[in-house]
Amino acid sequence: MRHGVCQGPEEDALGVTLSDIEGARRVIEGSVLRTPMLPAPKLSALTAAEVYVKYENLQVTNSFKDRGALVKLASLNEAERKRGVITMSAGNHGQAVAYHAARLGIPATIVMPVTTPFVKVAATRMHGAEVVLHGESVAEAQARCEQIQAKRNLVLVHPYDDPRIIAGQGTITLEVLEVVPDLDVLVFPVGGGGLIAGNAIAAHAKNPAIEVVGAEAALYPSVWNALRGEDRPIGGPTLAEGIAVKNVGKLTLPIIRELVAEIILVDEAHLERAVNAYLTLQKTMAEGAGAAGLAAMLAKPGRFTGKKVGLVLCGGNIDPRVLASIMVRELERDSRIVSFRLTIPDRPGVLGAIATRIGELGANILEVDHRRLFLDVPAKGAKLDVTIETRDGAHAEEIMAAFAADGYLPVRIEPGAAIE
Amino acid sequence: MRHGVCQGPEEDALGVTLSDIEGARRVIEGSVLRTPMLPAPKLSALTAAEVYVKYENLQVTNSFKDRGALVKLASLNEAERKRGVITMSAGNHGQAVAYHAARLGIPATIVMPVTTPFVKVAATRMHGAEVVLHGESVAEAQARCEQIQAKRNLVLVHPYDDPRIIAGQGTITLEVLEVVPDLDVLVFPVGGGGLIAGNAIAAHAKNPAIEVVGAEAALYPSVWNALRGEDRPIGGPTLAEGIAVKNVGKLTLPIIRELVAEIILVDEAHLERAVNAYLTLQKTMAEGAGAAGLAAMLAKPGRFTGKKVGLVLCGGNIDPRVLASIMVRELERDSRIVSFRLTIPDRPGVLGAIATRIGELGANILEVDHRRLFLDVPAKGAKLDVTIETRDGAHAEEIMAAFAADGYLPVRIEPGAAIE
Repeated sequence: MRHGVCQGPEEDALGVTLSDIEGARRVIEGSVLRTPMLPAPKLSALTAAEVYVKYENLQVTNSFKDRGALVKLASLNEAERKRGVITMSAGNHGQAVAYHAARLGIPATIVMPVTTPFVKVAATRMHGAEVVLHGESVAEAQARCEQIQAKRNLVLVHPYDDPRIIAGQGTITLEVLEVVPDLDVLVFPVGGGGLIAGNAIAAHAKNPAIEVVGAEAALYPSVWNALRGEDRPIGGPTLAEGIAVKNVGKLTLPIIRELVAEIILVDEAHLERAVNAYLTLQKTMAEGAGAAGLAAMLAKPGRFTGKKVGLVLCGGNIDPRVLASIMVRELERDSRIVSFRLTIPDRPGVLGAIATRIGELGANILEVDHRRLFLDVPAKGAKLDVTIETRDGAHAEEIMAAFAADGYLPVRIEPGAAIE
Repeated sequence: MRHGVCQGPEEDALGVTLSDIEGARRVIEGSVLRTPMLPAPKLSALTAAEVYVKYENLQVTNSFKDRGALVKLASLNEAERKRGVITMSAGNHGQAVAYHAARLGIPATIVMPVTTPFVKVAATRMHGAEVVLHGESVAEAQARCEQIQAKRNLVLVHPYDDPRIIAGQGTITLEVLEVVPDLDVLVFPVGGGGLIAGNAIAAHAKNPAIEVVGAEAALYPSVWNALRGEDRPIGGPTLAEGIAVKNVGKLTLPIIRELVAEIILVDEAHLERAVNAYLTLQKTMAEGAGAAGLAAMLAKPGRFTGKKVGLVLCGGNIDPRVLASIMVRELERDSRIVSFRLTIPDRPGVLGAIATRIGELGANILEVDHRRLFLDVPAKGAKLDVTIETRDGAHAEEIMAAFAADGYLPVRIEPGAAIE
């Protein structure tokens, strides 16, 4: 890991140079959004740092993948454009290739695992691409992608291991540094490494004093393992499916090894908190991978204290149902939504009395459930499940104590617990 | 309603001039974010217009209210600053006054109805303001606000009926037109009228060819009634509580009458769709009032077809629980989430068979509910409620038909219906 070295032959040895990235920028000018880079005071307060966010979720396909995809597609000659392109992607790269291929009149085929969410399949088809659903896993889809590519003689648009893709993603840092030139740290999510590799080259060439830090999902520590020679297990369901990559890039790894100061592993709880923080504090929608940089700040707070930090919110394509459940779980964790079960005498007016009591105690009733009145009930009593909104954990305790004093035998129901 | 008239004495007659708004801009420079104004291609596709969005939800207190509040506070003399300010607001104006008063070292008191959500009370207190909770309604809180103001000799910061507030809000259009000068229409949410009044003056002075349109909640048609001499009922729970205003401003109404081309009333369904469209298509969080401009485009689509339209996403402070429920309801409406009840033989292995069948049919299981197995059940059978994710309405029908053919007597459960 190198700092303060002037640009020289080493840059060329990495396969992508600042001049490639500047060229990429001219290619995307006018066709890819120059996204806002803005101070995020509430995230600064949350992390005790000075945080700026680059909103790549505002791109047309809602991720930074527009950049590399366009640079690669625009580089094809007439014969290649006629043959068409293919890629394997369940996510943002596929949408970006489909969108820009359609714009340039290039036929595109996107191979996706059959498990891909409908929303993503539909979005990719909407851009006019041929979608081939194949395989339960990414590996199976990839094998099919290679078959089709060979058979139809298509041009492969690799999601990260391609110098033009890397150069395209690196354009982000050129834009970032024009707005905030004196950052201390730039944090990028790491999957296959295309995003961080291109941007590490740009940052290092423009201002070698800036530390480039990677945020990798703890369930997919591919780059971590490769850099450290470790063998941590890789796999499992993650909120950050956009960076859930098992194979490190052949081009990207040497760049990361050379120019990235540190890889921080982020677990699912930090990813979830980061998605929620973007939503509730910055009013913007980040997918798990898109929030990984912020998750790294939450995972290792001392690392960033007092520093001027640039975060790239690299994608916003999160399933609305997942987002809804994250928001509700966060409120439950804060004890701002609390459920408990009361044992109540089975006579008229009790429900009204309980509702009134909750109001007096300053909480709001969200849900009352007595569908199970007929189950597990002593002859003269019934059970009532109540979900309320409180100010905080202490307020929730106070309300439980009041119902205990009133003889309702309140029992707290844990968030997400099955109630039988 | 006037167009193509040069700026002249009439402007002065309206109480606020372009020069006031330009002055306001100098006041807020560096202390209020110059928010992005960006093309929104997916909203353009949705509305068959060319849509640009001004992201005022990215302000520190997540609404445009920062602008007017700061302009007013900065105009106070030393004696007034020492006495302190007061306002009545359950929402964004209160937070904006609290935040900028704290920045300027001015003591601030914010009176809120006791029904104000905890999140908003906490956010206002966090900015260091004294929060007085009083009254069930805005009117009761307002009465208390006036009492305290008189008793403590505080300066009132009115949410809209003040020339400095109006001038402050008008700065939005100066920024908007520097990015996209040739808009056909600018749409602003209308509550008390401060936002649209200031911006109508700025737009008319800068480019009288631009139509200024207001979006008012159909449940709160105060300006609509005042302009047309109608007497539509006002009141009721609305998603757009930020523009749920009963009293039109004395200063704002003449400006609206003079410079606004049309008021469009938006009902709750359009507001909900607009909030959801901002979230799922633009990956940004709009509160109901913040999405009212887009709701107006959905309510009256022909009005905007093919036009270059500027929308001001004026605020993002929506309760996460409300947002979560909007997202899920939208999926249910699209039949992408469908619930139905099956009658099943009560023997081992049936659940597995049904789950496998759903998989074969290409849907995902979200929830299975057999907590009510013991109720309302023939001796030899049971009922099973299944919630699945489908591609679309046709796919949902196909799955229902398959279960009917298999003899499970499927019955669709409507979204939100109580299941007994």
